[in-house]
Amino acid sequence: MEDKRMDEFPESYPMSGGDGAYSYAQNSKSQRGYVEVSKEMIKEAILKKFDINTLSTPLNSIFVADLGCSTGPNSFIVVQNIVDAIEHKYQLSKYHDEIPEFQVFFNDHASNDFNTLFKSFPPKRKYLASAVPGSFYGRLFPKGSIHIFHSSHSLNWLSKVPKEIMDNTSPAWNKGRIHYTNAPKEVVEAYATQFAMDMESFLCARAEELVVGGLMVLLIVAVPDVILSSEFTICTQLDHLGSCLMDMEKMGLVSEANLDSINLPIYFPSPKELMAVIERNRCFSIEGIQDLGQDKQVRIESLTLTLRAALRGFFEKHFGNDIVDEVFDRYLEKLANTPIFLNLNENQKTFVLSVILKCKPNY
Amino acid sequence: MEDKRMDEFPESYPMSGGDGAYSYAQNSKSQRGYVEVSKEMIKEAILKKFDINTLSTPLNSIFVADLGCSTGPNSFIVVQNIVDAIEHKYQLSKYHDEIPEFQVFFNDHASNDFNTLFKSFPPKRKYLASAVPGSFYGRLFPKGSIHIFHSSHSLNWLSKVPKEIMDNTSPAWNKGRIHYTNAPKEVVEAYATQFAMDMESFLCARAEELVVGGLMVLLIVAVPDVILSSEFTICTQLDHLGSCLMDMEKMGLVSEANLDSINLPIYFPSPKELMAVIERNRCFSIEGIQDLGQDKQVRIESLTLTLRAALRGFFEKHFGNDIVDEVFDRYLEKLANTPIFLNLNENQKTFVLSVILKCKPNY
Repeated sequence: MEDKRMDEFPESYPMSGGDGAYSYAQNSKSQRGYVEVSKEMIKEAILKKFDINTLSTPLNSIFVADLGCSTGPNSFIVVQNIVDAIEHKYQLSKYHDEIPEFQVFFNDHASNDFNTLFKSFPPKRKYLASAVPGSFYGRLFPKGSIHIFHSSHSLNWLSKVPKEIMDNTSPAWNKGRIHYTNAPKEVVEAYATQFAMDMESFLCARAEELVVGGLMVLLIVAVPDVILSSEFTICTQLDHLGSCLMDMEKMGLVSEANLDSINLPIYFPSPKELMAVIERNRCFSIEGIQDLGQDKQVRIESLTLTLRAALRGFFEKHFGNDIVDEVFDRYLEKLANTPIFLNLNENQKTFVLSVILKCKPNY
Repeated sequence: MEDKRMDEFPESYPMSGGDGAYSYAQNSKSQRGYVEVSKEMIKEAILKKFDINTLSTPLNSIFVADLGCSTGPNSFIVVQNIVDAIEHKYQLSKYHDEIPEFQVFFNDHASNDFNTLFKSFPPKRKYLASAVPGSFYGRLFPKGSIHIFHSSHSLNWLSKVPKEIMDNTSPAWNKGRIHYTNAPKEVVEAYATQFAMDMESFLCARAEELVVGGLMVLLIVAVPDVILSSEFTICTQLDHLGSCLMDMEKMGLVSEANLDSINLPIYFPSPKELMAVIERNRCFSIEGIQDLGQDKQVRIESLTLTLRAALRGFFEKHFGNDIVDEVFDRYLEKLANTPIFLNLNENQKTFVLSVILKCKPNY
């Protein structure tokens, strides 16, 4: 086995590191809301679908992996929920005096700020902790070694920007935009194809790594199939962010070439689209699917901070450090002056979809 | 299992992070020399002592852990040597078409610069890589999960400074010194006891984690039982480093209280002492022991840089950032003016001891 992950997946866009005012650690409360909502769902899935009788636990240990952990705060809550739920299940079973040890693997790109993650590990934790740096679109763990995979808000990040949208000779060239919203259908298709290919790679890698009887819990940011003109989603938000950059280009603050060459490697599927990708892959059965709803009680300020924490690294890599403040100041102003963002909680239709998957027996 | 490692082992002294001129990454060539020397020894141990017939490899994977990896350069070479040797052994055996997958765990304190480690991972490597932050004087891995443990130059670091040498009411109070060389016998005994206790904790934890049939390779910096007055060891060096601080105290550059309260948590056993600790523990049989010799061709400049990379973090924590340059400038000058350091390669008697251990069958 030669590990080519570094070559195949050279692009990474870590969340803002450290724990300062604009860090991901301080600006991931929106994601945390879903962690709370998903707690009961995870508990129920483990109680009903995680079969400790047929489970292969060769080392009398349970291995849990969180994929796309970033600098951690939400990840620590999730893995604690998972460990508690499994422990509870063992306590209710005939194995109540053979509670296994837990080892948790925290995964993210090698460029993620793992130093901050490690420094904020909960001091009293019920598990042995390790980190696995690398792209989850490739293999990360030995075959048949992980009992529970979890990933929240990470599969929306593509492994790369689709090539053709960067090619000015292609009909899919995405000139003047940073994302696929309101783009020609070739651009939208290029993004959708990249998402489908990435999910296929992800599912194939995990199918090899998951223990027979193990579970995978995925939380993915999704958009409805149809969006009314009075409504908005994260895609609308990114379109507005792009238009801030276009304004700056017109003012000479950003070069045309620089604007044309930036494209966000993010995709937001509809539930139908996500299900189709999982079914086409054929490794996993869908054991549960749930709409975790919208992030309520948000304000345009928090919307801006969350987006900033997620995209700062990407923007700095592309434009340099100086521009980030200006982009997000303008963005906040634009949202404040756009009618659909006034009635924020009513009009936003972005939601989070949770999916519980299990390896099919023949895999 | 409640993990209390963070509470029990609060002290950590990471090597200098990053890859700048004074970093550990750039100043660990002395350690690298031993990595080269130990290559053949590791190869032979795996060939002769690592029994792949009786080995329990439940996942058809081999798990390797390097304990005290720091920011990596030497660690990458060592684990590659180990993986190559095991692969070679499989190729020679009846399992030649069942070469296992390898997962390597890189361990160091949570305060180690893992970000630099991850960024410098060899891009084409034959193993899946993960990191385990935490003190190796506690449990780090699930029971019976690791096939090969390796640790080089790390077990010389104690889990903490012995309490009594910090207590000004104790006969073991180590006033005016930073280490145990030329100290009263109570100080030397306190250090020796701490080393023995730490080794005991280390061996007990590893005995739980090692797979039946697995191996442990330890490289430990050691000193002879008897040292002539014309010779010197790392202990003599540290005594000179301490005397630089004493000079600075006399000049008012360092406070007396600050000098009295600094003690290096490092210990250098003699071979006899190390063997006694391992035998008293009773979990492991000693399968091999080798004197890897002295670090030859060194100069006082490289001696100073190596010590600086290893101790900077510790000194900065104690004295603040401003003092480190001055201490090591003075140290270099002191070595240059001390006769035994003139004929450096002839007079230095510090050496590295390599020990190959295997779990005894009843463990």
